[in-house]
Amino acid sequence: MTSRVPPHPDRADITLQGVLEALVDPVRRSIVAQLHLATDPISCGHFDIPVARSTATHHFNVLREAGLIRQHYAGTSRMNTLRRDDIDELLPGLLDACARDHQAQTPA
Amino acid sequence: MTSRVPPHPDRADITLQGVLEALVDPVRRSIVAQLHLATDPISCGHFDIPVARSTATHHFNVLREAGLIRQHYAGTSRMNTLRRDDIDELLPGLLDACARDHQAQTPA
Repeated sequence: MTSRVPPHPDRADITLQGVLEALVDPVRRSIVAQLHLATDPISCGHFDIPVARSTATHHFNVLREAGLIRQHYAGTSRMNTLRRDDIDELLPGLLDACARDHQAQTPA
Repeated sequence: MTSRVPPHPDRADITLQGVLEALVDPVRRSIVAQLHLATDPISCGHFDIPVARSTATHHFNVLREAGLIRQHYAGTSRMNTLRRDDIDELLPGLLDACARDHQAQTPA
């Protein structure tokens, strides 16, 4: 099933520019925050985001290509995990900041 | 001379969204990195940035309005300092990440 896994950048190819471009979008920041606050992988269909499925797919692609998330298949579901170590190496504090911001904007 | 000092947002009005929008631009990130690597305030005319003066003024305004820099006058020079404490509270690690990225891209 390896061929179904989309390409991911190597650690050395993750740039601050790419990460900032990805996270300047609030929907993408929300996806990252939800992953950071979760303990398990989340399938593309199970995020709480206010966009259509096709738009969501675009956002997941941007996040994957920027090096923020890894995607793999579990059956027919495309699962998402954070590349925590890679992000922390580039910008420690970023994931916590996204999560704090997300929680402050999400009604309890 | 207080009236010549442009307005700055309060700490509570600095948002992650605004900071990311400001720093997604490489020239603005370079300004922030140069300030982070410097010990003293830097006047608007003394940054190493590849843009015309009028464009630079726009970038300084964006950074000030996002809460990343403070500006004050020294004679006729508009001086810039980082709002380190405010930035560190919002996203610790950000300034160092910008500086590392800047240094990696700047020929020695």
